[in-house]
Amino acid sequence: MLYEILKEHDAQFYIQHSGDNNFYYATKFRIPNSAFYIIGIDGTDLLVVPEMEKNRASRESRVKEIASFTDLGYHERLKELKDSRKALAQTLIELLKTHKAKKILIPPNFPSFLTLDFLEHFEVEVVENPFLKMRAVKSGEEIEKIRDTSVAIIESFKLALELLKKGIRDCDELRNEIEMFLFGRGYLAQDTIVSSGKLSADPHCIGYGEIREHVVIDVFPKSRRHHYYSDFTRTVILDDCPEIEDMLDAVIEAQQKAISMVREGVTARDVHYMVCDVLEERGYHTIRKKYREGFIHSTGHGVGLDIHEEPRIFENEDALKAGMVFTVEPGLYYKKWGGVRVEDVVVVRRNGCEVLTEFPRKIDLRRV
Amino acid sequence: MLYEILKEHDAQFYIQHSGDNNFYYATKFRIPNSAFYIIGIDGTDLLVVPEMEKNRASRESRVKEIASFTDLGYHERLKELKDSRKALAQTLIELLKTHKAKKILIPPNFPSFLTLDFLEHFEVEVVENPFLKMRAVKSGEEIEKIRDTSVAIIESFKLALELLKKGIRDCDELRNEIEMFLFGRGYLAQDTIVSSGKLSADPHCIGYGEIREHVVIDVFPKSRRHHYYSDFTRTVILDDCPEIEDMLDAVIEAQQKAISMVREGVTARDVHYMVCDVLEERGYHTIRKKYREGFIHSTGHGVGLDIHEEPRIFENEDALKAGMVFTVEPGLYYKKWGGVRVEDVVVVRRNGCEVLTEFPRKIDLRRV
Repeated sequence: MLYEILKEHDAQFYIQHSGDNNFYYATKFRIPNSAFYIIGIDGTDLLVVPEMEKNRASRESRVKEIASFTDLGYHERLKELKDSRKALAQTLIELLKTHKAKKILIPPNFPSFLTLDFLEHFEVEVVENPFLKMRAVKSGEEIEKIRDTSVAIIESFKLALELLKKGIRDCDELRNEIEMFLFGRGYLAQDTIVSSGKLSADPHCIGYGEIREHVVIDVFPKSRRHHYYSDFTRTVILDDCPEIEDMLDAVIEAQQKAISMVREGVTARDVHYMVCDVLEERGYHTIRKKYREGFIHSTGHGVGLDIHEEPRIFENEDALKAGMVFTVEPGLYYKKWGGVRVEDVVVVRRNGCEVLTEFPRKIDLRRV
Repeated sequence: MLYEILKEHDAQFYIQHSGDNNFYYATKFRIPNSAFYIIGIDGTDLLVVPEMEKNRASRESRVKEIASFTDLGYHERLKELKDSRKALAQTLIELLKTHKAKKILIPPNFPSFLTLDFLEHFEVEVVENPFLKMRAVKSGEEIEKIRDTSVAIIESFKLALELLKKGIRDCDELRNEIEMFLFGRGYLAQDTIVSSGKLSADPHCIGYGEIREHVVIDVFPKSRRHHYYSDFTRTVILDDCPEIEDMLDAVIEAQQKAISMVREGVTARDVHYMVCDVLEERGYHTIRKKYREGFIHSTGHGVGLDIHEEPRIFENEDALKAGMVFTVEPGLYYKKWGGVRVEDVVVVRRNGCEVLTEFPRKIDLRRV
């Protein structure tokens, strides 16, 4: 795929910097420092790392050819230029020149200090990150990792329900119990949303204070072993709240209709518009009609090494592919009443989809 | 400070993007999505966030003026350009043009897709991130947060020693006990190094397998409440290993001499060279003489919102300032024997320094 992109753009090199999961996906090497993965149309397939990471890189990375900045003359340039960024840029520029580079492709978030120096020697073009696109379609192995994290989420959510039944009514306490449970089993959940009352009208507020008539619980841990995320939300009814209950019924209907249409070939927009159709029919406002209350976010996002990745389930007309894994998470948010959301992770299959976070959607603890 | 930088570079705006702790430091607002903090010589002090984050931004950020991308016409441009990155770039470009921008300053890691579009309308210059420099000198409040995390580390290390005394000899088990202990108290430790045998010759290998004659334990959690890190390493002797013990004695001597000279006005290089002097005198190789075994990394790094931040304690001649917080962590690494390291976090004071992670440096459990 990379060769095609290089040819298409008439470029000789693509450079991936460390610092996001595209680097890990491409190299299978995790590194806290600066490192670069360089792919050339001449067959170059090179990982450049700090000297002290070279041994680990040869053990852990799937890239065969590894050079250190030291090997490439970084320290001599640093002595001369007395500027670590200029020395790094020059080291990469010399390497690329040796390989007769004229045009370089970089991902959108590539560091600007390198880009500005590259521009003095090469043509530079930003392209959609090719690994980001590859990551959207998961391998069987990746799906099993997301399934593994999903199973842990459901277990943690069952614990949360038990604690709600026992009368726990503090957002922070419930969040802490969920996160401790997951950490002990090898999953890291941060900023778990446990939000109640009018605060829940803000979909990104993690919530605090007392749990009242309803609570939105949104858990999105990653495995500390294999690093894959999953994502799951339920809204629990604890006491009478007719507006919230009607919103929840609408969101559940929208989610079920949206999930039931997910299959290979359907577009992201079809799924998103199904959610909008159902919610609008039931009298709610949606982002499609530019409202700032009601359903005010996209229908979903890919889940994998990042909690938010491709595909985006919004107004884009990209056709879904078998193996894509994403959330379907309609919500309704009104300052006057609060918010509700229901979220599952699905895998696109040829003739439908599989829900990885299967769990009842309407949870009413009033009758307990 | 920002106004001086703008004047010095004859620029009208500095733009800080979200996605690193400089954004949080500057705005006191955490956001997983794209957001921008724009400071202008005309008094502009503006936070630009997604529409759905506007309420939370006004509650949580210290920036008074907040606009959403929607407010600034992003959605109209998206409809026209059908490219979210182009639409975002145009939205910011129009905003900056309204404010008569001619030259823009950006931090080194600013996303290249924006920089390349900015270049069509403005002069663009990369500058050292001004917030990174500010962050190097901590306020009293920040020091107390790092002290808080340091206290938790020492507690977790005492637990690790108890477990070693009880006979636990598995790297993964010990790491897990340390990380669970910290998580339960509100601290997140990841990739805690528990490394033994020859594996410990690689300073960034987290370690696995059986704990043998010695073990390097390097714990660097951050608080899940206030988000400040601390960093601490001890090498524990468990059985006879004369080479390792001699290396450890050398490292402890180097560390103590380095710490004893830390005070305002001393340069980072003075501290780093003190470590090199002691280790070379004792017959070990150092990075100063370009060896790739022995002492092969810098002497230390700043600690705060990031685990690695300014100041760097290496060959740079920057003078230390009161309030700087950094590690002093000499180590020795030989493939033949393994590695040792001793690390503490210190606060620079006018006439010396304070060690935040005070704990005995030579730990010999053979006699237990």
